[in-house]
Amino acid sequence: MNILQTDTVRLNTEKDAIEIIDQTLLPARLEIRALKTQEEIIRAICRLEVRGAPAIGVCAAYGVCLAANDIRTDDRESFLAALEEKAQALKNARPTAVNLSWAVDRMMDAARKDASLSVPEIRARLFDEAEAMHRQDTDVCARIGQYGRPLIKDGYGILTHCNAGQLATTKYGTALAPVYKAFEDGLHIRVYADETRPLLQGARLTASELKSAGVPVTLLCDNMASFAMMNKLIDIVFTGCDRVARNGDAANKIGTSGVAVLARHYGIPFYICAPISSIDFSCPDGNAIPIEMRSPDEVTDLWYKERMAPEGIDVLNPAFDVTPASLITGFITEKGIFAPDELIRLQKETEDMA
Amino acid sequence: MNILQTDTVRLNTEKDAIEIIDQTLLPARLEIRALKTQEEIIRAICRLEVRGAPAIGVCAAYGVCLAANDIRTDDRESFLAALEEKAQALKNARPTAVNLSWAVDRMMDAARKDASLSVPEIRARLFDEAEAMHRQDTDVCARIGQYGRPLIKDGYGILTHCNAGQLATTKYGTALAPVYKAFEDGLHIRVYADETRPLLQGARLTASELKSAGVPVTLLCDNMASFAMMNKLIDIVFTGCDRVARNGDAANKIGTSGVAVLARHYGIPFYICAPISSIDFSCPDGNAIPIEMRSPDEVTDLWYKERMAPEGIDVLNPAFDVTPASLITGFITEKGIFAPDELIRLQKETEDMA
Repeated sequence: MNILQTDTVRLNTEKDAIEIIDQTLLPARLEIRALKTQEEIIRAICRLEVRGAPAIGVCAAYGVCLAANDIRTDDRESFLAALEEKAQALKNARPTAVNLSWAVDRMMDAARKDASLSVPEIRARLFDEAEAMHRQDTDVCARIGQYGRPLIKDGYGILTHCNAGQLATTKYGTALAPVYKAFEDGLHIRVYADETRPLLQGARLTASELKSAGVPVTLLCDNMASFAMMNKLIDIVFTGCDRVARNGDAANKIGTSGVAVLARHYGIPFYICAPISSIDFSCPDGNAIPIEMRSPDEVTDLWYKERMAPEGIDVLNPAFDVTPASLITGFITEKGIFAPDELIRLQKETEDMA
Repeated sequence: MNILQTDTVRLNTEKDAIEIIDQTLLPARLEIRALKTQEEIIRAICRLEVRGAPAIGVCAAYGVCLAANDIRTDDRESFLAALEEKAQALKNARPTAVNLSWAVDRMMDAARKDASLSVPEIRARLFDEAEAMHRQDTDVCARIGQYGRPLIKDGYGILTHCNAGQLATTKYGTALAPVYKAFEDGLHIRVYADETRPLLQGARLTASELKSAGVPVTLLCDNMASFAMMNKLIDIVFTGCDRVARNGDAANKIGTSGVAVLARHYGIPFYICAPISSIDFSCPDGNAIPIEMRSPDEVTDLWYKERMAPEGIDVLNPAFDVTPASLITGFITEKGIFAPDELIRLQKETEDMA
């Protein structure tokens, strides 16, 4: 089994289960995990077995399908009320990535849209909608790759933080989509992957998927990014993102704001690669983005095997931070590249579509 | 046994051994290790069982004493030639911290200074010189604490990177000396300790020694420093340093330059605390400071128990980086606080003393 030939997330209709790569086991083992119940899905999202804003969105969409199958009533109103409750629980699994609530809301809209549909018909429509969202995510990532590709020149060193590759999406990734495209085009590039403490998504996931693809990759600790930039190893920075506020402030994996400050200091362009579904137009700025605080154990007990700090120590463990719009060169989306203050233009287009 | 009541490094004359806290075992175990041979001393320095520029300096000084005891000749010239060879080997154990070669050179000067001394008399003088250097380090750290203390105000959050506390010196530390002093004075302060990948000196050592002393301390991953600064948890930054160039560029633990860039961005004063022996007046600027590159295993196989990155991955693992003088608010030394461009004044004084 190869990481890149395995679906990060898919619906197995025969088994009535969502199948995910259990990302907590990488790089040691590539294992598929079947999620059948609401509890299993929420637990998998909380434990980061499936992670990455777009992948969580698709997983949650399939989660709504499974929830719909579980509700044993043919009364439309009771069905929708029960589904709404399950949808809310899914949305609450993690607070920061907006794709999660975006995906669930879109599924609920699909469920409610046509008042003439029976419950079995709603179930079928939900399945179609989730499949469409899955295909759309792959398509969006491919487009992000195409728009970002011309920013990469032969010989470039590309820094990325956390994992915004195929493992964070259904295919190609967001931040890594332009990288895969440039590599396909034969460019000589090297990716510098921040290991991304505490859960090491860079070391475990980004390094693994790039290596599987044959893309030259160098792993570094997060605190080495300044050294790499100072020594001119880095020409451009690409990261993914979990939620963008209307003003262009962007929440992404903890440490991203630090990378952006460094990039500005060293004069290196800093791009965020994200689907438009990651933009939360209802959110005025970064201060309004909820930041998930996670367990101290992640910092003090790596792999839960050996304690690396004294007992009883206080720990700061925010899972995300907010990079201010002023430090972001541009957003690479499926509709092109936008400066932070241009995002607002997309709001109208998005609303017109809806 | 309490960390703070245990000597980081001492000479045990009865056992003819240097006794160190084996810092690779903290925080799980506080164990004293006896170093008897030249090979054991060099290995302990290379493996970071004893680390921190000042502590390495004192350890190497005692190493020259032990080497002198091992040379079985009473012929002065043969003795000095043999000692010189062993001294060179000690100096080569690690390249970046200048205190190592400074301490060994000072010991060799003491050995050679008085041509009338017999070999047994030289051995005695070397012992006196090493003891003097040990006492001097403790005194220097106390003075750094006194000079740095007024920079700390009640309620301050203090960020530090790596360990420049008692475990890096003979007592008090450099970066932590003002902190201990402020805490003694009853100030309400909190230290934010960067964990300091790859070897986690912040999590393992700084967090442990501050906790032993009762100083409030919060552990954070290196990539969380930007979050902490953005959220106004940090009022001042203190770090130690391994070598300062004449122009004020300073090499310290990898990641320090990134912290300095962040501090500048967020408008937070950034101080380096170091004895004057850390200033290498023969070194014009940071480009001339040799940077030790260490094994990839430190990044990929934490504690050598579980692999955290794919096999065969390329790794960048510089042990230090250079913070440019322009980002340093001041150097806190045993002679007071100096702006980077004032260091040159100390050169003349130091030469006049010699």
